[in-house]
Amino acid sequence: MYSILIKNTQLEGREIDLLIKGDRIAKIGHNIEFQADRVIDGKGKSIIPGFINMHTHSAMTLMRGIGEDMHLMEWLEEKIWPVEKRLDDEMIYWGTRLACLEMIKSGTTTFNDQYWRVPVAVKAVKEAGLRSVQPYVILDLMDKSRSEEIKRECAEMYEQSKEWGDVNRFAVGIHSPYSVSEEMIVWASRFARERGLLVHLHLSETEGENIRSIKKHGLTPTEYLEKLGVLGPEVIAAHCLWMSDSDIEILSKYDVKIVHNINSNLKIASGYKFRYNEFRDAGLTVTLGTDGCASSNNLDMIETMKISALVQKAWRDDPTSMPLDELMKLATLNGARALGIEAGEIREGLLADLSLINTDIFEFTPNINFLANLIYSANSSCVDTVICNGKIVMENRVVKGEREIIDNVNRLYKKLL
Amino acid sequence: MYSILIKNTQLEGREIDLLIKGDRIAKIGHNIEFQADRVIDGKGKSIIPGFINMHTHSAMTLMRGIGEDMHLMEWLEEKIWPVEKRLDDEMIYWGTRLACLEMIKSGTTTFNDQYWRVPVAVKAVKEAGLRSVQPYVILDLMDKSRSEEIKRECAEMYEQSKEWGDVNRFAVGIHSPYSVSEEMIVWASRFARERGLLVHLHLSETEGENIRSIKKHGLTPTEYLEKLGVLGPEVIAAHCLWMSDSDIEILSKYDVKIVHNINSNLKIASGYKFRYNEFRDAGLTVTLGTDGCASSNNLDMIETMKISALVQKAWRDDPTSMPLDELMKLATLNGARALGIEAGEIREGLLADLSLINTDIFEFTPNINFLANLIYSANSSCVDTVICNGKIVMENRVVKGEREIIDNVNRLYKKLL
Repeated sequence: MYSILIKNTQLEGREIDLLIKGDRIAKIGHNIEFQADRVIDGKGKSIIPGFINMHTHSAMTLMRGIGEDMHLMEWLEEKIWPVEKRLDDEMIYWGTRLACLEMIKSGTTTFNDQYWRVPVAVKAVKEAGLRSVQPYVILDLMDKSRSEEIKRECAEMYEQSKEWGDVNRFAVGIHSPYSVSEEMIVWASRFARERGLLVHLHLSETEGENIRSIKKHGLTPTEYLEKLGVLGPEVIAAHCLWMSDSDIEILSKYDVKIVHNINSNLKIASGYKFRYNEFRDAGLTVTLGTDGCASSNNLDMIETMKISALVQKAWRDDPTSMPLDELMKLATLNGARALGIEAGEIREGLLADLSLINTDIFEFTPNINFLANLIYSANSSCVDTVICNGKIVMENRVVKGEREIIDNVNRLYKKLL
Repeated sequence: MYSILIKNTQLEGREIDLLIKGDRIAKIGHNIEFQADRVIDGKGKSIIPGFINMHTHSAMTLMRGIGEDMHLMEWLEEKIWPVEKRLDDEMIYWGTRLACLEMIKSGTTTFNDQYWRVPVAVKAVKEAGLRSVQPYVILDLMDKSRSEEIKRECAEMYEQSKEWGDVNRFAVGIHSPYSVSEEMIVWASRFARERGLLVHLHLSETEGENIRSIKKHGLTPTEYLEKLGVLGPEVIAAHCLWMSDSDIEILSKYDVKIVHNINSNLKIASGYKFRYNEFRDAGLTVTLGTDGCASSNNLDMIETMKISALVQKAWRDDPTSMPLDELMKLATLNGARALGIEAGEIREGLLADLSLINTDIFEFTPNINFLANLIYSANSSCVDTVICNGKIVMENRVVKGEREIIDNVNRLYKKLL
């Protein structure tokens, strides 16, 4: 069993050693004596759990910067949709590798994805050494003629996924209540529930979506999903920006998991009054995500924590909102809970998904408050070493294959434009 | 005359060479032949103007993270004011050196400061090699017994400043219309105007400030300053968050310069509906600042550009607000205009204040849109080389004296707590 011993590092202000055996944190203590396969000097560094990015469209990293300062529909119709038609397996592969490179560089060890050609993405994620949940996206645009093909493809991919191992898991993606037909929503939900799969969907991202749902169904999108019997603890709902008290009560009743994607929300101007306090106080598991790089340009969870907190403080007119310790949980532990993985904290027995943060740099000077420095002062270049599933995926900011990834993306993206 | 030749770099998408002679950009062209004192290989890099941070309290970098998630008055009374009483020259010096280190590392070449013990700060800025405006802060808290002492000190410091050279300039700081007595405001304004000095002040940062001004004077803070005859093109007003149409008209009439400090505004929950479009459309020069590190934790202008744009798009419900080209001007050219320095653009004859951005990194992959990558995807670790006033202050991310600065701050900050 492969082992890594990290010596003389900091954990929440205490100096410790940390031993990893196989995929788990085996021991945390002082002066651990063990003949490990690898010993890492943790001096001047602090250990944190790997971030969990709960909403990405990985391969869209290939379209970074393709359309800026545009209205949503113009952006979709002129930029995204025409380009997506030209995507092939090679592009999906290198786009996902680039996303993984970026996540590793910024301390993310697990992500919840949602994009096309899942088997290609899984190949890329495996090679990068990250952990992911990979929903098969159902998006029928109310076209019933496609139902059978979608059902067949989803079932086939589920069968294939049994060979993926347990680091990457298959899930079901229902694009949104407004873009998928009632029949397919109900089918997808049952398909997932019968097999114990997670369900990922977009929910109340825009105000217009709510208005149209009420007009069409006489129900908010949340009420509509409740009526269809779709809500449950396996459902991970991205955005949730336009939620009434009653919607929050419903989500709480079914223990639906919430993903806040502040950068994307701000940039597309979907809304910004994310009701964090109300979700939290209703006992809901709130998590953070970046959304895809076509809309929000990067996959940086440190930046996402910062902007989430700043905007929450501002719109609530309360500087004590979303305090540092809660923020860190949103980006780590809550994501692990939502995905049902034993990670998100640095504790013996949990999965060895963690980062070493270099604190011997100006951003951490002085180091009066480590979390404040990590989230409000530093940027993700402070992430020095990343371990996922007990394997080193970055050391001293070096990631294997980085040059090859950048070169391949630079070769391929021109074919998209 | 010292000369630097930057070969094969990118400027706004074109490959160029750039020659610096003395403190100026001497030539921009192709295949420049010149026996320069230094030749820099600009391949894989793009040149941008140095950022101009229009509102800082430099030495407060020493207090980074001292109070987090707190209400403003509690934060001032429990954290900032007790600590400020313990500041001495050595702390101001190393705190300012740390601020300069941080600004260099993130591509800032000029800043408009406002803090105590200006001569000590100027010494630090000179040694760092940056350009600054250093207002003497007038803050009498309506205590008339201090007037003569303040006037004398301000006049003495002005005299001293004649020996500073022209890279660092003296100015007058009027803390704010609510914290400085009418007599001192009028005196300070006349003192500055008679000597051709800039005036820096805080204006309408909070809603409460406006309410109290109307109660006390029957006027908004802007109207009150107009009545006192203080407004003019030499006035640089930080924050300007709570401005009516009529206030904006007044500011425009006097060509007052505006500094937007989004991170500080969000974090302290002072407000976020900065009326950028209205300021711009009234012909006002809008600039960006970070505020001090005690309130907003870092001095990163790339992050400031990003968050300014995201929040502007969100609260205006318009993703086309504050587009990329305007953003870049806010952080460079507009600051130069406000300070009256011949910089803020890459043009022959202007001051050689510029950065080389490393674009051969994942944050710029693919590089479809350079400005979108710089502002929305990258963080300030993309800044590779910085030149200020024709001198290299960082090359390949190495800044002279970095270790010494970090060590001294780590030694000193404990005395503050």
